[in-house]
Amino acid sequence: MLKIPPEKLRKWRKQLYSIIFRTDTPAGKAFDIGLLVVILFSVLMASLESISTFSRQFAIAIKVAEWFITVCFTIEYALRIYSSRNRRKYILSFYGIIDFLSILPSYLGLFINGTQYFVVIRSLRLLRIFRILQLTRFMDESAFLAMAVRKSLDKILVFINFIFILVIILGSLMYVVEGGVNHSFSNIPRSIYWAIVTITTVGYGDITPITLTGQMISAVIMLLGYAIIAVPTGIVTSEIIFRKRKKTSTVCSQCGSNDHEQDAVFCKKCGTILPDKKNSP
Amino acid sequence: MLKIPPEKLRKWRKQLYSIIFRTDTPAGKAFDIGLLVVILFSVLMASLESISTFSRQFAIAIKVAEWFITVCFTIEYALRIYSSRNRRKYILSFYGIIDFLSILPSYLGLFINGTQYFVVIRSLRLLRIFRILQLTRFMDESAFLAMAVRKSLDKILVFINFIFILVIILGSLMYVVEGGVNHSFSNIPRSIYWAIVTITTVGYGDITPITLTGQMISAVIMLLGYAIIAVPTGIVTSEIIFRKRKKTSTVCSQCGSNDHEQDAVFCKKCGTILPDKKNSP
Amino acid sequence: MLKIPPEKLRKWRKQLYSIIFRTDTPAGKAFDIGLLVVILFSVLMASLESISTFSRQFAIAIKVAEWFITVCFTIEYALRIYSSRNRRKYILSFYGIIDFLSILPSYLGLFINGTQYFVVIRSLRLLRIFRILQLTRFMDESAFLAMAVRKSLDKILVFINFIFILVIILGSLMYVVEGGVNHSFSNIPRSIYWAIVTITTVGYGDITPITLTGQMISAVIMLLGYAIIAVPTGIVTSEIIFRKRKKTSTVCSQCGSNDHEQDAVFCKKCGTILPDKKNSP
Amino acid sequence: MLKIPPEKLRKWRKQLYSIIFRTDTPAGKAFDIGLLVVILFSVLMASLESISTFSRQFAIAIKVAEWFITVCFTIEYALRIYSSRNRRKYILSFYGIIDFLSILPSYLGLFINGTQYFVVIRSLRLLRIFRILQLTRFMDESAFLAMAVRKSLDKILVFINFIFILVIILGSLMYVVEGGVNHSFSNIPRSIYWAIVTITTVGYGDITPITLTGQMISAVIMLLGYAIIAVPTGIVTSEIIFRKRKKTSTVCSQCGSNDHEQDAVFCKKCGTILPDKKNSP
Repeated sequence: MLKIPPEKLRKWRKQLYSIIFRTDTPAGKAFDIGLLVVILFSVLMASLESISTFSRQFAIAIKVAEWFITVCFTIEYALRIYSSRNRRKYILSFYGIIDFLSILPSYLGLFINGTQYFVVIRSLRLLRIFRILQLTRFMDESAFLAMAVRKSLDKILVFINFIFILVIILGSLMYVVEGGVNHSFSNIPRSIYWAIVTITTVGYGDITPITLTGQMISAVIMLLGYAIIAVPTGIVTSEIIFRKRKKTSTVCSQCGSNDHEQDAVFCKKCGTILPDKKNSP
Repeated sequence: MLKIPPEKLRKWRKQLYSIIFRTDTPAGKAFDIGLLVVILFSVLMASLESISTFSRQFAIAIKVAEWFITVCFTIEYALRIYSSRNRRKYILSFYGIIDFLSILPSYLGLFINGTQYFVVIRSLRLLRIFRILQLTRFMDESAFLAMAVRKSLDKILVFINFIFILVIILGSLMYVVEGGVNHSFSNIPRSIYWAIVTITTVGYGDITPITLTGQMISAVIMLLGYAIIAVPTGIVTSEIIFRKRKKTSTVCSQCGSNDHEQDAVFCKKCGTILPDKKNSP
Repeated sequence: MLKIPPEKLRKWRKQLYSIIFRTDTPAGKAFDIGLLVVILFSVLMASLESISTFSRQFAIAIKVAEWFITVCFTIEYALRIYSSRNRRKYILSFYGIIDFLSILPSYLGLFINGTQYFVVIRSLRLLRIFRILQLTRFMDESAFLAMAVRKSLDKILVFINFIFILVIILGSLMYVVEGGVNHSFSNIPRSIYWAIVTITTVGYGDITPITLTGQMISAVIMLLGYAIIAVPTGIVTSEIIFRKRKKTSTVCSQCGSNDHEQDAVFCKKCGTILPDKKNSP
Repeated sequence: MLKIPPEKLRKWRKQLYSIIFRTDTPAGKAFDIGLLVVILFSVLMASLESISTFSRQFAIAIKVAEWFITVCFTIEYALRIYSSRNRRKYILSFYGIIDFLSILPSYLGLFINGTQYFVVIRSLRLLRIFRILQLTRFMDESAFLAMAVRKSLDKILVFINFIFILVIILGSLMYVVEGGVNHSFSNIPRSIYWAIVTITTVGYGDITPITLTGQMISAVIMLLGYAIIAVPTGIVTSEIIFRKRKKTSTVCSQCGSNDHEQDAVFCKKCGTILPDKKNSP
């Protein structure tokens, strides 16, 4: 039997780690892109399989692709566990659980039926795209948008909360107004669903008011929804504008504060002239 | 019979007041959160009751929950009246009337039928959430958004007024164009309802134009609705931006620049210490 | 017969003019509000008349109201002609023609049938509301918004033009893709109508793609429409923000230029210190 | 046979070039507008032809118009090739290929059937409008908007990518939740199509959830779509505002303020003459 010296193994494992978990080396980049291709392929196969005419015609090809994907993911999962520095942490992490759940159904399917619905978990693997995005020129943009949204989250939550109370009140009102004559508004949850469909201006049309009073209330909800979309838009827009202003991130040579606006000449914390402005004014 | 000395009673009433009406003490906070839970439970029960299959199956459980809620709200209403400093003012206030109307139907239901429709009033109690919000870290955000919306209300009213005139004119026009051949546009109120559904981009599809002329007019309304949503958005966004900037309107005594950030201590243009920070750092 | 001295007549006519055409006197204000009430009443009557069950039941009441409105409008029209300084100009003006056309149908209806469709012209009289708005505290807001929209009109026209070309190309494409199998896309104008319904996110659902290719193209149009709404919004928002900044309108005492920004201390044209800033910095 | 001296020919060809390819001479402008009229006419004819009742009734008129347009386009195409400086480059350019493909179908139609679907290529010729726009006062606005959109494209691509992952995950989820009981969600591609229809607030209503769970997930998607439209709007708005401000980035040599308007001659903060204006007034 072949014997591998432990220090060689350790080195090999370290290398594996940098390929699988890091994205800033050429090999790591290639691995991530290869993985992305397999994930996209698995989502495509799941989509095609769900089309009954297709799945009947290409039953064998689908089976083969399914097991190819499962084997790929299984090997990747095994390597990830093997090479990760803290195995427990990886296995119990968000991505670790998704990685495990995305291979489980195929094996379970050998023994029991009805596991095809776990397909949705495989699509969750698409979230890895965000990690791979970090390789690209989109990294800054991603981080910028994520920060702008996070900073305005509190305000948006207040807004969503307001919308929730509104749709409950308006949904109840419409149940009272339309419920008797229009079986579409047969109960309050459906009426609230309708209110959300209306206030967000989606407007499926599966549930619509038929009484004049109901249509007048609807008109009010629509105008409300049309006008108050201004609120989240205003929140995020102002946040993006303010964030953009600060992008330069000059660091004060005296006190180290780095939160200066683009047109700042002196440090706002200690009054020292900022390094890159010394010669300009 | 038990006798309670009046000064003890007065003290007790005062304590009760601070629990029920104020939100800045631990007891007041707990009371408000408890109340919120009961309100949410009452809305949930009303929703479930409206689902006919559910209400038939769990008729007794619903009855019990109904009376539990009614008793809770009745006790709360009695305590509010008892402990409020100005009883008349509370009873006639917006919240006072809602509190009363939300318990009335259950008692009336003992004698007369058809009061189940008062359920909508109970959902109005959800508005109390806004009071409870004041406890939390969302308070500033709430106040900020409320102020921004209030400040832009005049402009938004002008805009809504413009929309109203537009939909009346366009609704009448569509009634003339489509009325003869399309029974969906059978009268002007329905046509105006359609115009609102269209201009707000809700687009149920319960009423749609079928003539070529009608579809061309619709296309104009849609493009109009799509483009002029920019107006309320612009109004609110600019208000939010100006409100945000105003928080930071310190004027430098040396160079007059007034565009400093909230945490600035020195002028970013000339490095002078800012007037209102002189004593603080 | 009564004889009125000409100078008295002239004075009376002048007074009449100020009541009917101007809005800044108490009498003029009262006249305008009275007129507004009659216009709103006429729109309400036209709406009710269009509801067939209503118009059959209250045939006589509607007839009476109809003639009451016609007489009011006729008298108003006669007085406007009589008192206006330049009669020809008034008669041929936009409002003059609407005023005339809004009374014509009733008189024509005595001799010929089918004039009920002129009802839409009466709703155009609602545009007078904008004149009456000028009386109120909304005047500034109206003017501000009108100016912001007018200033961004060029950019919005470019945008609308872009949308037009897009929907023609995409509509033709969908006609080719769906036309054979989906009778909803039976011709290009209908397909273009569908493209407008989709790109503006109205989405009636009266015409929907059924082929997979069609649904994929639709998805692209939707995402496009969803993303590019940002363009008119950005245009108007930036215009409102820039307009707001200049609102102060300080006039330079030296050169008379009045277009300064809110935070300006010196005149941007001649460098003189601005009058209201002399003491502040 | 007529003989034309080569230098005359060369001059003539040069003149032709300036008429056909350039837009800044009166003749070039006239040619472009004439061409635009023919293109619009060809799109109109293609639209009318697609309406079956119309195409049957006016079969001959359509045929004549078709060949008139084809001849016009053929002559134009020949002249373009003849006069262009670099013929190969023109023929292989985007516009060159469209120009060729827009005349091909008519000639092919003489020999084979089924070429009527190439009509969509003719509508692509409408893109020439953008070139003609450059003649007009809209040129600046076009360039400004194009630049603002291009600058925010990276951020918008990140956003669109986020939406894509979201609709795949949510579409798969809805397939699992609704697939069994609602044949509208019969496969994953359809479910993803539904998710896009919903998140962009288009809301056709051709596919709608019927289970309570499905409706709850839908409500979340709608609210998400309603709230995150703020993101592209914020991106473009901030870009437009920054672009607008940049036009005016003169820095005062005295106090360093750089927020001056385009027509400013003196610094608004300290009254010093602005550096790039020293020689102009």
